[in-house]
Amino acid sequence: MSRSHVSHRDGHVYEFAPAMEPVYEAADGESLTVETIDSLNGAIQTDDDLLDAVPEEVNAATGPIAVAGATPGDVLAVEIEDVRVTEDRGRVLTAPGFGLLQDDPEIDHPATRITEVDADSGDGTGDEAGGRIAFEGLDVPIEPVIGTIGVATAEEAVSTLTPDDHGGNLDTTDMTAGTTAYFPVFQEGAMLAMGDSKAAMADGEMCGTGAEIGTEIDVTVTLSVVDDPEVPLDRPLVDTGDAVKTVASAETMEAAVELANRDVIRLLAHEHDFSRTEAYLFSSLVGGLEISQVVDPQVTARNAVPSEYLSVPF
Amino acid sequence: MSRSHVSHRDGHVYEFAPAMEPVYEAADGESLTVETIDSLNGAIQTDDDLLDAVPEEVNAATGPIAVAGATPGDVLAVEIEDVRVTEDRGRVLTAPGFGLLQDDPEIDHPATRITEVDADSGDGTGDEAGGRIAFEGLDVPIEPVIGTIGVATAEEAVSTLTPDDHGGNLDTTDMTAGTTAYFPVFQEGAMLAMGDSKAAMADGEMCGTGAEIGTEIDVTVTLSVVDDPEVPLDRPLVDTGDAVKTVASAETMEAAVELANRDVIRLLAHEHDFSRTEAYLFSSLVGGLEISQVVDPQVTARNAVPSEYLSVPF
Repeated sequence: MSRSHVSHRDGHVYEFAPAMEPVYEAADGESLTVETIDSLNGAIQTDDDLLDAVPEEVNAATGPIAVAGATPGDVLAVEIEDVRVTEDRGRVLTAPGFGLLQDDPEIDHPATRITEVDADSGDGTGDEAGGRIAFEGLDVPIEPVIGTIGVATAEEAVSTLTPDDHGGNLDTTDMTAGTTAYFPVFQEGAMLAMGDSKAAMADGEMCGTGAEIGTEIDVTVTLSVVDDPEVPLDRPLVDTGDAVKTVASAETMEAAVELANRDVIRLLAHEHDFSRTEAYLFSSLVGGLEISQVVDPQVTARNAVPSEYLSVPF
Repeated sequence: MSRSHVSHRDGHVYEFAPAMEPVYEAADGESLTVETIDSLNGAIQTDDDLLDAVPEEVNAATGPIAVAGATPGDVLAVEIEDVRVTEDRGRVLTAPGFGLLQDDPEIDHPATRITEVDADSGDGTGDEAGGRIAFEGLDVPIEPVIGTIGVATAEEAVSTLTPDDHGGNLDTTDMTAGTTAYFPVFQEGAMLAMGDSKAAMADGEMCGTGAEIGTEIDVTVTLSVVDDPEVPLDRPLVDTGDAVKTVASAETMEAAVELANRDVIRLLAHEHDFSRTEAYLFSSLVGGLEISQVVDPQVTARNAVPSEYLSVPF
């Protein structure tokens, strides 16, 4: 079957909601290419283009894509096969009222730096496939990140600026080629949407952005079911190949890491027939807590466990 | 010069303070072996040994070691050459009122699991030198961590349970063989002390401990000066060989990552002649924020920058 192509021009959303109208219906197990526009809809093209405020419509997420047969309680697996940058430039920027150091008087808000893609450095596709962007004379490897990816929510509409249990603006560097991301299905069809890619991003996304850029993303979407009701999927999970990581968003880092650790404990207890106490103790020995981002309306953290000790049970 | 040996039996402390009495005086550039006892002073030897509360005297830090010539304002570099476990077992445990999930009614507080060192699995020394510990049928590679390491404080005495600008209970997985750690010198002689090693520890140290174990630590201590007063060293910094990381402790994760990012911005601006704004933007593209621990009286976070982009200026 030829790979279908879904573009932001076909449809995109600025919120994940319980009721969403699909722009495409995928079969269970179908492979697609999803085209995304940069998080600022092309408004920033030079260092002189400044963002006076975070726009109301930000992080356009291409979709939603309905997956045939998806029913609340299922799990949607999104295998990310490739993320290719599709522009000659990214942009990293600050905006007033946004970012970790938004109150620092010695840091300009707004400020923009264009990060040009080095056309001679590789095509920027795949893992370790080369490609660099330039920042003020330094070059940085292109390691694309899908910033916003998620599904229809359970109850309330959530802006594409905010991450939560449905995914959304997770800004998690693991959302890249080679990772399979798992999302809870809250609504018929699941309603997958994604956008807000970066050519490169630090864990934390401190200034509020990575190198925001348009991309083409190859994914395969597959449904599965929760076999053991004691191990449900309440929020996103990623399998990078090297590690399985729970992904949790909350108002504070303290609350986010607690959620991520609780989810890991449940998975470890299930896999190894550990008591909850044993799973907690073991979680304190391997892998550990990671920061996704500290700048969105909710922050996002992960708890990683090396693949040697944990597999995905869906 | 033969390598001197300083043991916890020669002297150890339970707090870092402005005035400390050295147990050994090292020359600038001297190589030493430091012997440490486990963080609980050998009290926990079987699964039946439970910790009803975190003891007042915990994390015994061998030392302090005065470094001849160290003067406030200097920088003390501690090159960690090797960390060897010296016991046949570690111990991972919970205690009431301690740990990320201390209020979870389904997790036992206290609880202990002994993690036996597999004598056939290697000698546990050096990087990738082998060695495993056992946890309930799983084996975990020995990757030693020095949990508590620091110097005399500027003003107040700080328990070895608490991390701060002098170091102390940083519980940072980078404190291992191959890393050089840098500390500000606040007092004559610097007064280095270390202990609280783990055979293995997850980033975050969620249950409140790793696999606590006695160790022998080979270090070389070297003084340097701050050349550029605009780039002082206010708190610990580590160079792992792959990355330079600022290390910051504060009451909340939000405050700790802000400090760590501010310190990285100052270093990046100095190295690349960036404005503060440019350094902030660049910090959002490479490396990023990491969690050391979320369980001590102050929490600890890092901001990592790949060595390609940042060197230590001292």
